[in-house]
Amino acid sequence: MKKILVLGAGLSTHVLIKYLLDNSEENDWFVTVGDLSLEIAKKSINNHNRGEAIKFDIFDENQAEKLIKETDMVVSMLPARFHHIPAEFCIKFGKNLVTASYVSEQLQALDAQAKEKGLIFLNEVGLDPGIDHMSTMKVLKKLKAQGATVTGFRSFTGGLVAPKYDNNPWHYKFTWNPRNVVMAGQGTAQFIVNGKYKYIPYHKLFERVDRINVLNYGEFEGYANRDSLKYRSAYGLDNVQTMIRGTLRRTGYAKTWNIFVQLGMTDDTYFVENSEKMTYREFINSYLKYDPVKSVENKLAEYLNIPPDSYCIYRLRWLGIFDDRPIGLKKATPAQILQQLLEEKWVFEKEDRDMIVMQHVFEYTTKENKKKKMTSSFVIEGEEDTSAMAITVGTPAAIAVKLIMQGKIKVTGVKIPTLPEIYEPILDELETIGVRFIEEESDN
Amino acid sequence: MKKILVLGAGLSTHVLIKYLLDNSEENDWFVTVGDLSLEIAKKSINNHNRGEAIKFDIFDENQAEKLIKETDMVVSMLPARFHHIPAEFCIKFGKNLVTASYVSEQLQALDAQAKEKGLIFLNEVGLDPGIDHMSTMKVLKKLKAQGATVTGFRSFTGGLVAPKYDNNPWHYKFTWNPRNVVMAGQGTAQFIVNGKYKYIPYHKLFERVDRINVLNYGEFEGYANRDSLKYRSAYGLDNVQTMIRGTLRRTGYAKTWNIFVQLGMTDDTYFVENSEKMTYREFINSYLKYDPVKSVENKLAEYLNIPPDSYCIYRLRWLGIFDDRPIGLKKATPAQILQQLLEEKWVFEKEDRDMIVMQHVFEYTTKENKKKKMTSSFVIEGEEDTSAMAITVGTPAAIAVKLIMQGKIKVTGVKIPTLPEIYEPILDELETIGVRFIEEESDN
Repeated sequence: MKKILVLGAGLSTHVLIKYLLDNSEENDWFVTVGDLSLEIAKKSINNHNRGEAIKFDIFDENQAEKLIKETDMVVSMLPARFHHIPAEFCIKFGKNLVTASYVSEQLQALDAQAKEKGLIFLNEVGLDPGIDHMSTMKVLKKLKAQGATVTGFRSFTGGLVAPKYDNNPWHYKFTWNPRNVVMAGQGTAQFIVNGKYKYIPYHKLFERVDRINVLNYGEFEGYANRDSLKYRSAYGLDNVQTMIRGTLRRTGYAKTWNIFVQLGMTDDTYFVENSEKMTYREFINSYLKYDPVKSVENKLAEYLNIPPDSYCIYRLRWLGIFDDRPIGLKKATPAQILQQLLEEKWVFEKEDRDMIVMQHVFEYTTKENKKKKMTSSFVIEGEEDTSAMAITVGTPAAIAVKLIMQGKIKVTGVKIPTLPEIYEPILDELETIGVRFIEEESDN
Repeated sequence: MKKILVLGAGLSTHVLIKYLLDNSEENDWFVTVGDLSLEIAKKSINNHNRGEAIKFDIFDENQAEKLIKETDMVVSMLPARFHHIPAEFCIKFGKNLVTASYVSEQLQALDAQAKEKGLIFLNEVGLDPGIDHMSTMKVLKKLKAQGATVTGFRSFTGGLVAPKYDNNPWHYKFTWNPRNVVMAGQGTAQFIVNGKYKYIPYHKLFERVDRINVLNYGEFEGYANRDSLKYRSAYGLDNVQTMIRGTLRRTGYAKTWNIFVQLGMTDDTYFVENSEKMTYREFINSYLKYDPVKSVENKLAEYLNIPPDSYCIYRLRWLGIFDDRPIGLKKATPAQILQQLLEEKWVFEKEDRDMIVMQHVFEYTTKENKKKKMTSSFVIEGEEDTSAMAITVGTPAAIAVKLIMQGKIKVTGVKIPTLPEIYEPILDELETIGVRFIEEESDN
């Protein structure tokens, strides 16, 4: 019997653990799940006879060492900053490792040692990063086989609420980490268009969105991520003329969110004076000029040159940002106050279902020198009790674990799933659970 | 003979050193000036028989210790981050200290020890900080004596080019540290208006300027500093309803500078790709959308909604930001590229003279319950070979040294010049060299 050790049982990990347990009989596996909360670990095992739950604390290095020594492979679903701890023990005891996180510098530094020991440390094998890499590489391989030259690549992903449950004027609910949503886009977005580097500072980001239609799901808008160029080499697109990666929202979101950005209400670097005794109306007013007569609403509309009867202002009213209701947060930053209000209003209810939307657009020149465009799109909605996010993050990682355990992935070192031997079997199996990319070709 | 040790002989220090030497005979002083450059130190002494120049390195703590042990008082004109080193030795050997810099936490921490030893460590006794504190306190004392209650305080200072030498469309030249000008205002400006805290993020700062007329020098515009509330307690204005401190420029500057801010060209946090081989035109174009037809100028005007024939665009053209001229800077941030261009164009020529402009506006209620306003304004132009900046930074510090040496300042501890026993004699003497505040009263 081979042993798999899963560290961390939070969020999307239950899908991963269920997959491993469902496959444990056939493959003769035993799955140990360690979490700071024994209860959460137990829940994820659900009394399966090939599973065991333990209390696990990453700060207890002796425990980590002992567990990793005795297992056959490690899956780290810990917060990304902790992966290097199991990774070091994996080197020491010669165990393979899978994570769904971005490769940190600390992890990348273990590449040579992993290779020397014949190990694979496979990372970024969730949704984004994960399915985005794999689905992109699949299309790129196909186009290359046809003799095409890819000149442009645009890729957008969004975690949203499924249409049936999309019932607020923002067309957005928190299906994932609220803080990341409030802080999204801070810094400078960098990408290239027609061979030229382009930079968008944060305060202009939400004004420069692209309109994007995905399958029969209607219109979305996409804003650029900070790091559009990060995977240029990994994708083999060093000479691509246009490359942009971004985040999807429903149309109209960015224009309204931009009001918070313009006012300065997403700032997380200082505390709002007396936030505990302030109301939301006073909070927004502290970003507007003093005026003895004009209302907060009218001052806002004038300041940002927005019609007072616009849908943007309606969205803000719906949120309650103009309400004289106490904030009640001690020593809070603007971003924290805003997040509290949004968490009240953008609630993802128990009966709600989420949706993942991903679209890649490849511009290319055929070997007959024709300019073409290929769109590869994918939408998946959540199921009862299991979010689309959990499915799409947990399943690829679980399949990767299976393939490694079965010896079907031969490559070694610190990797992301950009090689056919990794992404092809994972994508094939993902198709069976509904992760199906629809390709559409057209002249460009 | 009493000994004064001046550490650092850069920038505005020559005015301070000349003052001390000019007064050395009468007071029986000997002045030692230490600088990393012996040449600069020698130049500042100018062969005076009561002065000596030495090579001084702040990283050689033995040298600092020996020098401070043997002197009677220390003036630190070193970069502010080094003041704590002489300060510690001043505590050890019981010497007074003067600096023109903001009080750091490290320095403030020596307050109790300084008091215990009967020493004064007097800081912020230059122009801004310095003359601003002193001139404010003088008016506040007078109003208090009249039984008035101060309800509002606005204070603006600018280092500009004198009108006769003001011959470029920006009405600005670098009379001081160029980097500080490029980075000015980054962060969030905080102040209070009618009892309410107000916040302005950087990307809105240059759109929210106040128009200010100063004496017969015409119109200026002021934008808020980050730290308007810093001196509320120090000035005894804890209950003031309005308080704002800011920086002055000539009218129109902020509107054009805001173009750089909006585009993102003042960012200092990332390197512009391939900056070495780029032209200025390509640099500004990297902040604008790709377009196969439109000119950079037209794209800019459209993006920021500025008439293409406006004076703003003329100012940019005059700078040469649209020129296809190579930047030639390796691995440069946007702010560094912009600074290089500005340093070429905003040159303060040898024959040019600078100008310091300061204005405080006090709103107050008289004891007869009348609402009044007092404006206290001051302008000084530079002299041949001596800038107004050097005069106004160096002279107050020099006078402070004299008063301390003469035993006329009795207070002890880490101080800034907000006490009458400090600011009154300094302001009196400053009047004799032309630092004269003009007060104007009116109904409010």
